[in-house]
Amino acid sequence: MSDSELLERARGGDRVALARLLSLLENGGGRARALGALVYRAGSEPDTVGITGAPGAGKSTLTDRLVSAAREEGRREVAVVAVDPTSPFSGGAILGDRVRMQGHALDDGVFIRSMATRGQLGGLAVAVPEAIRALGAAGFGLVLVETVGVGQVEVEVAGATDTTVVVVNPGWGDSVQAAKAGLLEVADVFVVNKADRPGASATRRDLEQMLDMGAHRDWRPPVVETVGVDGKGVEELWAAIISHRHHLGGSAVESRRAERAARLVRRVAAAAIERELDSLCSGPGYEDLVRLVVEGRADPFEAAEQLLAGIAGISGIFPGARPSQAAPGAQPGGTSATNATS
Amino acid sequence: MSDSELLERARGGDRVALARLLSLLENGGGRARALGALVYRAGSEPDTVGITGAPGAGKSTLTDRLVSAAREEGRREVAVVAVDPTSPFSGGAILGDRVRMQGHALDDGVFIRSMATRGQLGGLAVAVPEAIRALGAAGFGLVLVETVGVGQVEVEVAGATDTTVVVVNPGWGDSVQAAKAGLLEVADVFVVNKADRPGASATRRDLEQMLDMGAHRDWRPPVVETVGVDGKGVEELWAAIISHRHHLGGSAVESRRAERAARLVRRVAAAAIERELDSLCSGPGYEDLVRLVVEGRADPFEAAEQLLAGIAGISGIFPGARPSQAAPGAQPGGTSATNATS
Repeated sequence: MSDSELLERARGGDRVALARLLSLLENGGGRARALGALVYRAGSEPDTVGITGAPGAGKSTLTDRLVSAAREEGRREVAVVAVDPTSPFSGGAILGDRVRMQGHALDDGVFIRSMATRGQLGGLAVAVPEAIRALGAAGFGLVLVETVGVGQVEVEVAGATDTTVVVVNPGWGDSVQAAKAGLLEVADVFVVNKADRPGASATRRDLEQMLDMGAHRDWRPPVVETVGVDGKGVEELWAAIISHRHHLGGSAVESRRAERAARLVRRVAAAAIERELDSLCSGPGYEDLVRLVVEGRADPFEAAEQLLAGIAGISGIFPGARPSQAAPGAQPGGTSATNATS
Repeated sequence: MSDSELLERARGGDRVALARLLSLLENGGGRARALGALVYRAGSEPDTVGITGAPGAGKSTLTDRLVSAAREEGRREVAVVAVDPTSPFSGGAILGDRVRMQGHALDDGVFIRSMATRGQLGGLAVAVPEAIRALGAAGFGLVLVETVGVGQVEVEVAGATDTTVVVVNPGWGDSVQAAKAGLLEVADVFVVNKADRPGASATRRDLEQMLDMGAHRDWRPPVVETVGVDGKGVEELWAAIISHRHHLGGSAVESRRAERAARLVRRVAAAAIERELDSLCSGPGYEDLVRLVVEGRADPFEAAEQLLAGIAGISGIFPGARPSQAAPGAQPGGTSATNATS
């Protein structure tokens, strides 16, 4: 099946074609680049909500509930991207969650996708936004992104959404841990989940105090208490998400998205250069250059300059991409960028 | 004074000229690059000993004692490079140490230099090896590098020596902290300093147990007990350093140095590219490219490719460096590197 045929089928509601499209994108390489170019042209970015927090905080259950809330509100198509730090084959509690969420499997308006780091250049921070865009192209107006908020990349991925929900549990220190993980900075809405356990109000107070100290420009993240397993507080959580979205309005969403796109372009460029450098540093020429330094015939700067001379042909480093043809408006940008460095 | 004049004076024993040379190198920029090229050609790498450990472990006192030991053994010229995480002007305990070490100030065979992160591309990990090379060119056969073993860069700097000494203190957990900081991996010799305090033998036992578990190929780091303030055990420490040096022999030292030079060249290249990318990402062309992505007229890969087209002229990025003239043997290496990527 051709790339455009695959995309057309995915847009027409063919879930098998969509799953295949996402897999091809995730695997990277030449076909992924050609497909990616089509996907970005096929539609705009859907609304996104990130859900993050420590392992075991109940993120999957809450995500599950939020899908239901969105569907009940009349959202036509809702997708979930679950960023799974374990292999899709390793199973365990996380796979259990995934399986449980397949309760929505009978609902044709819901699509659930697990992602792990694969061949994609730039890792999850690049792959997840691309998957979101593909889901948008396939007609999904809302994408929930669930990540474990432990690593820097995972926090970044969850934070790279229109509204980011940070989930903590009652108990001394959990709010502090969230702060340490950098979750305080990305949160638009806080959830104290498992709020039927002792310590919920203390944890809520902790969070409020930290928010008192923080510098929130124009939106103070609300703190919502939920019990994911029986759905208590989920309505309030959904309302908080909607309220944040209204607060953002059209222009703030657009400027957030532009910032994210800017970070994404830089990240892809940096990853491409890194790969290029790895390749330069594994060639026999590299050993020759290093020997010059060891023997006192060049300093490291001269050797690095010689090494980087090999990078002159950096154009054309993405297999399958056709920039001149596919990005008609890019020429002026490319020219200005060149000028900016001269 | 011309660059070669300054270098000649430093080589001739003029300490003021040496201090000025080191400052110029540390400040970076065009003159630093021209001087660096001269320095690397002026002599080979001196013997180096790294001394690292937690703040307050007594590193400066031990370094001071090791300088004396080396001088007593007949070492003609000994230099100390102290990597100081605080500003040279902020003072405090660290400055106190520096001042105390100036007890060697009357000894013309000893030279002490503090370094902090300055303008040098690649930071301390590049600046310290360059300073070491400059000291070698000025006739110092032995350079002790003292760093606080807390940050990744500091540990790396201390580990980038022929023999690395890791200093811990008696007390539960200190050896564990050292392991956490990655000091176990870089240590060639362990010192339990302040060994007159309670818990010295327990700490020693801790370290030995960790060494039992670790995979040491052909050298098991000895654990030496010292009391820096009265010099107890310093003779044994110096003997352990010499013994490690003998163990390494000529060829192992050379291959260690080649590995370090390889890392250094890569680091300088990566830092140069990073700077280039920063410059590309601050131009107006970047905003145009990002807009293409936001508007669905290009994907991030296409935009990154356009951005990197501006990097084609990456040769000549180090001001003042004259690779073609200054590195006569570099041409074949450069050519091979180019081939390696095509």
